[in-house]
Order: sequence, then structure tokens, then C-alpha cells
Amino acid sequence: MAVSKGSEPWILMVTARSPTNIAVIKYWGKRDETLILPINDSISVTLDPDHLCTTTTVAVSPAFDSDRMWLNGKEISLSGGRYQSCLREIRRRAGDVEDEKKGIRIRKVDWERLRVHIASYNNFPTAAGLASSAAGFACLAFALAKLMNIKEENGELSSIARQGSGSACRSLYGGFVKWVMGNDASGHDSIAVQLANESHWDDLVIIIAVVSSQQKETSSTAGMRESIDTSTLLHYRSKVVVPRRILQMEEAIRNRDFQSFARLTCADSNQFHAVCLDTSPPIFYMNDTSRRHVLLYSL
Amino acid sequence: MAVSKGSEPWILMVTARSPTNIAVIKYWGKRDETLILPINDSISVTLDPDHLCTTTTVAVSPAFDSDRMWLNGKEISLSGGRYQSCLREIRRRAGDVEDEKKGIRIRKVDWERLRVHIASYNNFPTAAGLASSAAGFACLAFALAKLMNIKEENGELSSIARQGSGSACRSLYGGFVKWVMGNDASGHDSIAVQLANESHWDDLVIIIAVVSSQQKETSSTAGMRESIDTSTLLHYRSKVVVPRRILQMEEAIRNRDFQSFARLTCADSNQFHAVCLDTSPPIFYMNDTSRRHVLLYSL
Repeated sequence: MAVSKGSEPWILMVTARSPTNIAVIKYWGKRDETLILPINDSISVTLDPDHLCTTTTVAVSPAFDSDRMWLNGKEISLSGGRYQSCLREIRRRAGDVEDEKKGIRIRKVDWERLRVHIASYNNFPTAAGLASSAAGFACLAFALAKLMNIKEENGELSSIARQGSGSACRSLYGGFVKWVMGNDASGHDSIAVQLANESHWDDLVIIIAVVSSQQKETSSTAGMRESIDTSTLLHYRSKVVVPRRILQMEEAIRNRDFQSFARLTCADSNQFHAVCLDTSPPIFYMNDTSRRHVLLYSL
Repeated sequence: MAVSKGSEPWILMVTARSPTNIAVIKYWGKRDETLILPINDSISVTLDPDHLCTTTTVAVSPAFDSDRMWLNGKEISLSGGRYQSCLREIRRRAGDVEDEKKGIRIRKVDWERLRVHIASYNNFPTAAGLASSAAGFACLAFALAKLMNIKEENGELSSIARQGSGSACRSLYGGFVKWVMGNDASGHDSIAVQLANESHWDDLVIIIAVVSSQQKETSSTAGMRESIDTSTLLHYRSKVVVPRRILQMEEAIRNRDFQSFARLTCADSNQFHAVCLDTSPPIFYMNDTSRRHVLLYSL
């Protein structure tokens, strides 16, 4: 068991901050719902954590008798499969931790029994289309990995964050990030890779206009499932359209070619909304305000 | 030249009324813009002419020195290619006309020189997504064909109306109508055929809810052209999705299977809007009001 020199129950904490990311070639549709494996590659831009971000503190103490989490100050259940997947995968990889100053030593095997408390806070609207779950699960995976002294290799952490929320894997890197869909049924090759870091294109400015801070009527998870089941256009998109656009987008980013970058981003965003509309019953993530906005930025 | 017994300039008139039609499997995209040949078959329901219809009076007189037209009481130009196509095709087929009572005789060859006046009136909003041009060109072709004593054969009249506005060919028949896209470059096999007449399914009631009577921001012609040029999903829709749906819809109509009929109609309407959204720049024919309506009727 974990030991401490003193007799008082100790606590060990890590705080991390993760930015949200905005896909420029969209992820929509899973081939495996449990492991969260997508039907196509996607590319995103990670925002500056000074603007839209999640801040998460994870704490471990022998005094905790269950895993608990607070989101924006309100306790939420960790019983969902996604939280359980993340916690399980993280714990499996936990290493020895030693804090000499505090006189704490936790061995690898102790982590199975130790419970964690998690406090997470978004500085932007939650579940309103701003990828709060991406920032949230990236931050959770990252903070827990630090707390449990996990040595990250080959995008393994992005693969764990992915099991919390698909697009979370992309928030573990700055700059321009590609989530490679992978081929393996285990999902080990479905990871995020950085295409270019945040200094590659530093005069690119992203403006986030919040047209509504209400929660989405349809969650991404439910929406994707319905699109997979009912949209005839989605499969053509993922098999034919996206692979071509991924190559074009990688080239646009490499060359800092704003015109191609903007054209592809707009076209792919609109195609994602088109697939939502092609779903039965149709899903709408735009309203008349965003509609006017889209018209403006496509000119 | 046309002759009359009296010395006063005579006038000969025909008035016709055509209903509008609402596609249940949509036409969107032309393979030939001049002849108006579509990239897929479509199926529509013709509405009751007592409700939404165009009423057109065509008149011929030796006193007229040019072809002229009034739409909803306002003179409009006939110089556009579509009006010219219709007038040319109709005149080419004109026959001998004799009105014994009035003592008027017009020979086939006279029609090339005689000019017509056309007065057309829609009892519903024009260019607001209610297929006013379908009713309008169907009525124009039909009224002129009556005036010029044209013997209709093998859907030839629908092929002429089609050159005014694609979906007009479907308004020449009541009940359930299929516009067969055809294969020939001349367009002679791109005609409307009646699948079932208006008594086939007489407890089917169509409710038209006008959510906005403003003119569309993008005309169908411009919209289709942009979709053909920029939507990657449209081609898949026309080649793969629609042929399947046409068969399913024909079966649903044959069996008066309301559930399949409604499901296919909603899915195809939404897919049409999806393709509009997949166009660059995107086209929106829905607003927040129609959006709420769509959600309701898909339940």
C-alpha cells in the first residue's frame, strides 16, 4: 500500500490545462462505439489555451473512498463507460510515484485501489458545439497521466483520451493535428499526430463567434449514431470525399495557403452539417444566425 | 395569312388552369441547361388546382405586333431562353385552327407570323419554393397547345413544358407523376408519365404551410448549377441514392403505404436540403421556422 512518513492522510494533486480544438476536416461517425474508432481521418487546429480551455485538477489520497468528479462546480457521475474506460486504461499504465518532500511513495500496484477526485472547469460554454468534451477528456487523461507517472509513447495517451471523447485525442497537441483513423480493431493505431506546431503558421487567427450558448439538442454521440444508421451520404463522404480532402488540407497547411485552407474548412464544415440534415430525423446544429454567418465567411 | 370574314381585327383566346406539384423524390441538377435535362428521375404529387394553381389566358390576334406576357398583372420580358424555347417548340407543332362561329381560319404556316399575348396569374406566392414556375410553364404550354390546336402524343407537351421549367412537365398530369430523366441528348425521352391518377389515393391530404412568402435568395436554376459544380455529394445522390428511392417510392404509391411514402418524402426532402448545404457557397432554403416544422413532421 502507499505509504507516507506522517500519520496524517496525505493528498497528491496535479493541475493541467487543455485547449479545445476545432476540426477543419470533420470527424462524424464511429466504426466502433466503445473504443471510439472513427470512419475517417480528421484534422483540427488546436486553439490557444489562454482562450478556450479546460482546467482540471486531479487528486489522490488514501482518504478518498471512491472516484468522484465535479464539472464546473457540480458533481457528475463517473459511472459512464467513457470515464470508466479512461480511468481503467490510465490505471493500467500507472507507474511508481515518489514525492520525497512530502514523503509519499506510491507503487504501481497501489493505483488499482487508490481513488481519485477530479475537478474540471471549462472557461467557455459546455456542450454547445465548442468541443468541451475534447478539451475535457484530453485534460483528464493528461492530468491523470502526470499524477500516475505514466511514460507516454507513440501517441498512447491520445488513444486513451480518444476513448473518453473521440476528438479529445487531437487536443493533446498544439498547432495542426491529424487524428489518423487507423485500421486495427483494437484501436491502438487510431491516434493523433501533430502535422505542424503552433509556430508554423503564427499569423493565422481563429475567431470564435458564439451564436448560442445553449446546449445542443442532439449530443454528438447520438447524432453520429443516427447518421451512421440513416444517412446515405455519410458513407460516401467518409470513403470518397474525406480521404481526398485530407491530402488537400495537409498540403494547404504545409504551404500556409490560406485560400485553400479556408475553402476546404468551409466546404467540410458545410458537408458535415449536410450529413446531419441527411440523417433521419434530421439534426440541426445551425440556426438562422449561424446560417447568416456561414454565408458571410464563405464569400 | 389568317383570315376573318369581318373587317374588324379578331382575337382568339384560350384560358387554362394548371396546378403546382410537390416533388416527393426531388429533382436537383441538370445534365443539359438549355434543354433542361435532369441528372435523375423525380416523382411528384400534383396538387388540387382549386388550391394552388396558375391561370393563364393566351390570345392571338393579327392586331398584336409582338409576343408579350403579363405575370400577376405586371408585364415581364419574354426574351429569356426558356420562354423562347417554349414558344418556338409550340409554334413548330401548331396546326390549322378554324372557328366557324367567329369566322376565323388560321393555317399552320400562319402561326410563325402571328403574335400572342399571355396573361398569367398565380393564386399563391411566386418564386417562394412552391413551384410557381412548374405550374406556370405547364399552363403556358397547355394553353398555347390548345390555342394552336396541337395534337399531343407520347408526352411531347411535357417535353416542351420541361424546356420552360424542368418540373413543369410533371404538372401536366394529375395524381402521382414521374419525370423520367431519359438518356437521349435531344431530350425527347425526358418526359413526364403518370404513375397513378388523382383518385388512386384519395384520402391522402397534402397540407402546404407557408413559413415565408419571400422570394428565394437563390433561384433554382442558379442553385442547381452551383450544386452541380461544387457539391461532391450530389453526384452520389443522383447516381446511387435516387434510383433506389424511385423504386421504393413507386412501390409505396402503388400500395398506398403511407409510412414508407412519408419516410421517403422526408428523407429525400432533407437530402435535397443537405446537398444545398454541401454547395459552395452553401444554399439555404430553410429557416428556423421550417426547421422546427421538419423536426415535427419527421417524428
